[in-house]
Amino acid sequence: MLSPQPLRNGETPSPHPRIPPPHFHSTVSVQKLKRFNSLILVFRLATFCFSLTSAVFTLTNSRGSDSPHWYDFDAFRYVFAANAIVTLYSLFEMAASVWEISRGATLFPEVLQVWFDFGHDQVFAYLLLSANSAGTALARTLKGGDTCTVSNAFCVQSYIAISLGFAGFAFLGLSSLLSGFRVVCFIINGSRFHL
Amino acid sequence: MLSPQPLRNGETPSPHPRIPPPHFHSTVSVQKLKRFNSLILVFRLATFCFSLTSAVFTLTNSRGSDSPHWYDFDAFRYVFAANAIVTLYSLFEMAASVWEISRGATLFPEVLQVWFDFGHDQVFAYLLLSANSAGTALARTLKGGDTCTVSNAFCVQSYIAISLGFAGFAFLGLSSLLSGFRVVCFIINGSRFHL
Repeated sequence: MLSPQPLRNGETPSPHPRIPPPHFHSTVSVQKLKRFNSLILVFRLATFCFSLTSAVFTLTNSRGSDSPHWYDFDAFRYVFAANAIVTLYSLFEMAASVWEISRGATLFPEVLQVWFDFGHDQVFAYLLLSANSAGTALARTLKGGDTCTVSNAFCVQSYIAISLGFAGFAFLGLSSLLSGFRVVCFIINGSRFHL
Repeated sequence: MLSPQPLRNGETPSPHPRIPPPHFHSTVSVQKLKRFNSLILVFRLATFCFSLTSAVFTLTNSRGSDSPHWYDFDAFRYVFAANAIVTLYSLFEMAASVWEISRGATLFPEVLQVWFDFGHDQVFAYLLLSANSAGTALARTLKGGDTCTVSNAFCVQSYIAISLGFAGFAFLGLSSLLSGFRVVCFIINGSRFHL
């Protein structure tokens, strides 16, 4: 087993230690990281609000037994599921972000955290866009049919839900850009600090 | 005006010039960049093939005057347009990639090129996914109606076109990851070379 060599008499310690002290960051870079994390938190909050509202608008889109229900349509079920998933994910990410800003350390180990954030942001952004596009295609098809003639309010509420979902997607896309930047900082510099 | 100071007699030139020589890259990093660019080229070629085939399959999806036509449906028009745009974009990007691999320099100035690639990859990946999801939602709606009863071949051909579009999206997404990595390398190191 290798053990550190003791200094011999008269020997001075090397002025350039081979391994730099770990976790040394200047006050400026800590401040920069805090600002960056706060921006991510704002985007996540916006994503959460829009996705939650979209999910609620989709879920409540049923008016009595004689009018159409949202769960009768594949694409609207997809819209609801995608928005609900993104709502839960944003809630978790907001908690992780607040934890990081207040304690100065990530919730998971750093390498896991940056990859987890970026991977999930990307996947969920695509999921949300896909769901909302499918919802839009269905809504446009319904507009020409007799579903919207029977219950115009059903169609209007589904348009609102889908628009809110698109807004959620926009903010999730922005979060994804920022978390992507964090990943590459980590790959290149071995720390999320070097902005 | 400042002019370079001539060396006085007996003076030696400074061993550490303040400005390092620009555009100096080791053979290893040039080789690495070539491999990286070749990988991007392969992804772009795959994107091109899948998008082109998808666009052709959509475009030829009309069988006589008594059966449905692809251009009667919003979502199929969207699928065609998105795939056609991505086909043209991939063709251009392949040319730019071949240029860069063969000449060792980017087609546009470096800063413009890395941002152009990444921005367009992201936007077109989202566009393609959105179009294909909309196409899927329409195809599923048509399946339940009488369009597919009248002409089953129309529906089968549209499923194939949409599946090919999704494959194109997958490869465009991969290209987008790589070009995103290039952008952050450029931001941090001022060159696309530091991988």
